[in-house]
Amino acid sequence: MVKKSLLRNYARLIAKRGVNIQKGQDVVIEAELDQAEFVKMLVRVCYQCGARRVVVNWHSQELDVLHYRFQNEKTLSLTLPWEQARLQHYVDTLPARIYLDGDDPDGLASVNRKKLAAVVGARRKAAKPYRDKMENRHQWCIAAVPGEEWSKKLFPRTRGSVAQDKLWESILSVCRVTEEGDPVAAWEEHNKNLAKRCAHLNKLGIESLHYTAPNGTDFTVGMIPGAVFCGGEERTVRGVTFNPNIPSEEVFISPMRGKAEGKVVSTMPLSWNGALIEDFEITFKDGRAVEWHARKNEELLGKMIEMDEGSAYLGECALVPFESPIRETGMLFYNTLFDENAACHLALGFGFPDCLPGFATRTQDEAHRMGINDSTLHVDFMIGCRELNITAKCTDGKTVPIFENGTWAF
Amino acid sequence: MVKKSLLRNYARLIAKRGVNIQKGQDVVIEAELDQAEFVKMLVRVCYQCGARRVVVNWHSQELDVLHYRFQNEKTLSLTLPWEQARLQHYVDTLPARIYLDGDDPDGLASVNRKKLAAVVGARRKAAKPYRDKMENRHQWCIAAVPGEEWSKKLFPRTRGSVAQDKLWESILSVCRVTEEGDPVAAWEEHNKNLAKRCAHLNKLGIESLHYTAPNGTDFTVGMIPGAVFCGGEERTVRGVTFNPNIPSEEVFISPMRGKAEGKVVSTMPLSWNGALIEDFEITFKDGRAVEWHARKNEELLGKMIEMDEGSAYLGECALVPFESPIRETGMLFYNTLFDENAACHLALGFGFPDCLPGFATRTQDEAHRMGINDSTLHVDFMIGCRELNITAKCTDGKTVPIFENGTWAF
Repeated sequence: MVKKSLLRNYARLIAKRGVNIQKGQDVVIEAELDQAEFVKMLVRVCYQCGARRVVVNWHSQELDVLHYRFQNEKTLSLTLPWEQARLQHYVDTLPARIYLDGDDPDGLASVNRKKLAAVVGARRKAAKPYRDKMENRHQWCIAAVPGEEWSKKLFPRTRGSVAQDKLWESILSVCRVTEEGDPVAAWEEHNKNLAKRCAHLNKLGIESLHYTAPNGTDFTVGMIPGAVFCGGEERTVRGVTFNPNIPSEEVFISPMRGKAEGKVVSTMPLSWNGALIEDFEITFKDGRAVEWHARKNEELLGKMIEMDEGSAYLGECALVPFESPIRETGMLFYNTLFDENAACHLALGFGFPDCLPGFATRTQDEAHRMGINDSTLHVDFMIGCRELNITAKCTDGKTVPIFENGTWAF
Repeated sequence: MVKKSLLRNYARLIAKRGVNIQKGQDVVIEAELDQAEFVKMLVRVCYQCGARRVVVNWHSQELDVLHYRFQNEKTLSLTLPWEQARLQHYVDTLPARIYLDGDDPDGLASVNRKKLAAVVGARRKAAKPYRDKMENRHQWCIAAVPGEEWSKKLFPRTRGSVAQDKLWESILSVCRVTEEGDPVAAWEEHNKNLAKRCAHLNKLGIESLHYTAPNGTDFTVGMIPGAVFCGGEERTVRGVTFNPNIPSEEVFISPMRGKAEGKVVSTMPLSWNGALIEDFEITFKDGRAVEWHARKNEELLGKMIEMDEGSAYLGECALVPFESPIRETGMLFYNTLFDENAACHLALGFGFPDCLPGFATRTQDEAHRMGINDSTLHVDFMIGCRELNITAKCTDGKTVPIFENGTWAF
């Protein structure tokens, strides 16, 4: 049994450092039914942090499978008027939003891929105007709570409740929730370290990054002039800091749309829409993914890349050293929140306007004109390994090593 | 362990006979988190019955306690714009609505009574215009699924899962879900029997009913001319039959507002807003409750009676024989859905316009002008016992026995 006091500390970390609830703010939690015990604890902590109203939107992947099976695509794709009104309410009230991730990575494997992609695309498209209006204006945090099936997948040879306890232990440990010390303080320290990395990178004036590894990766990606590397905590336009991902080990930037050349080879499977895409590579030309292969689920990879106008372009380049605590667990979590923090990665789909200087005063449209990619998709995939080298070409003409043998060169 | 096949039959009973889902109709299920296993089965059955979309609104009494503790009355009382939009969506699409009851009867005991009554009143008031617009236009059904705490309360000396199984067995048995035979067919037979009772009563031309029992009950209530006794299945204005309560053993009518004289003495505790009101009596004059006493929670009883303009008047008189299968279990369920079907009862609060002749073509306002009580409240309380006698005074001047020694006199 995982100690209640540790779970309570984790809940405090999410409420205080994850979304940094402001006095009188609303909080909206998205959770799975099998996370109920932790959610009850978290709701109490949110109120104790000064929340005015805490609402939980409950989800069930098992029921989703039934909905996909029995509803037609049109019905599934609809965002009903009251659902739109709810999104508008979020725009109007800017709640802190907590997403508790814990799905079975294979939970939607039985769902028709084409139907799923179409429905997810349609619903994202309907939500996008609301999401755009909230961009950088409210705090949000994705954190994980072990669901039953996810735990069983990672620890298949143990009983259900033991598997869940084991996954809890891994999550708490990589999230810096330990018996010793205060996790909120540990995260403040961690945020400072990530900020130092960013400051160093941002002084270099990087024009492009060149990735090479013996597995075949040979790839160059261009930067938007003036864009900055970010990592750890973020800040709303009103100056409230928050940690959008717990855990997070990455330093990231949104690259220039249209500037990517060469081939990247995946170093970890990608879990997307409930299925695993394995051993894949993608070749870019003029910023666009033009060719791809996968040993498993190549067709699904294609669906993802071709989802909309922007889904074949990159939205993110993230740097994660090979000695990341998450990689050091030796576990594949089958969950991007963890696996993306085990290795350097790229993301297809939308980029982050807050990587631009003066983002607070810019519109989404301006950000897109400056080179931030726009899409309804944002999917990370891992290309980091022990042999990865990255060099930067800088505006002053110099070439500077950034990563050597999978880790920071400075 | 309760057999899955029995649970599936119960789900079928709710979907087919409870709400009688029409092909292409939406279904909305209100459920507690601890009913998830049965809900998953029910959702599947609803789709198999032809539902277009099945939505589950999840509730948690444990979280409600936190909301009441930490939110102020104003925040709790608000029906947000998107919640109004959802109610309007129900008016527009007329879904079949299933309410799965299974709350801990004492679950809200720690909540401030005054705050609770104010909030419930405010939220009901906001929902009422929508409810009125759906009256008799869609199918709905309240059925029970044992929650953990409710089960423990009824079987306190057994382990949690055993208690839940025992409560399941009681529920399935009184709902006519047995190993032998089809519960849907059993309910069609039961509906026929209730319809025969109603037909007999409706031929008598009853002006008023006079209740007497040795416990002190001596009470007369007047009828609306032409109003009819109903029981078992109901019918929407478009002719779709449904069973709004499973179980249901009662034959009922809405009396004439303003015509009630004398004293009624409760024969079972009343569970309201999470607390028990015990050993109480209410005296009526000109139809209005003017005096009341209770050994336990008298103040709460007063709050309920004085909730709004109509809550001191009667909305229902229901006849249930003492040999009801629910009474025969010998159990107090601490839940109105069951306990009201164990004994004759009255209800304070709103009445049912469908007891009026030609109700389909009448507005709510007309129904109220004809004598159907209006209120946001509707609360049943039990006055039936083995010694209860009821006689009817009829329009032809005759006096006819209706109940003798607690059961039907005809």
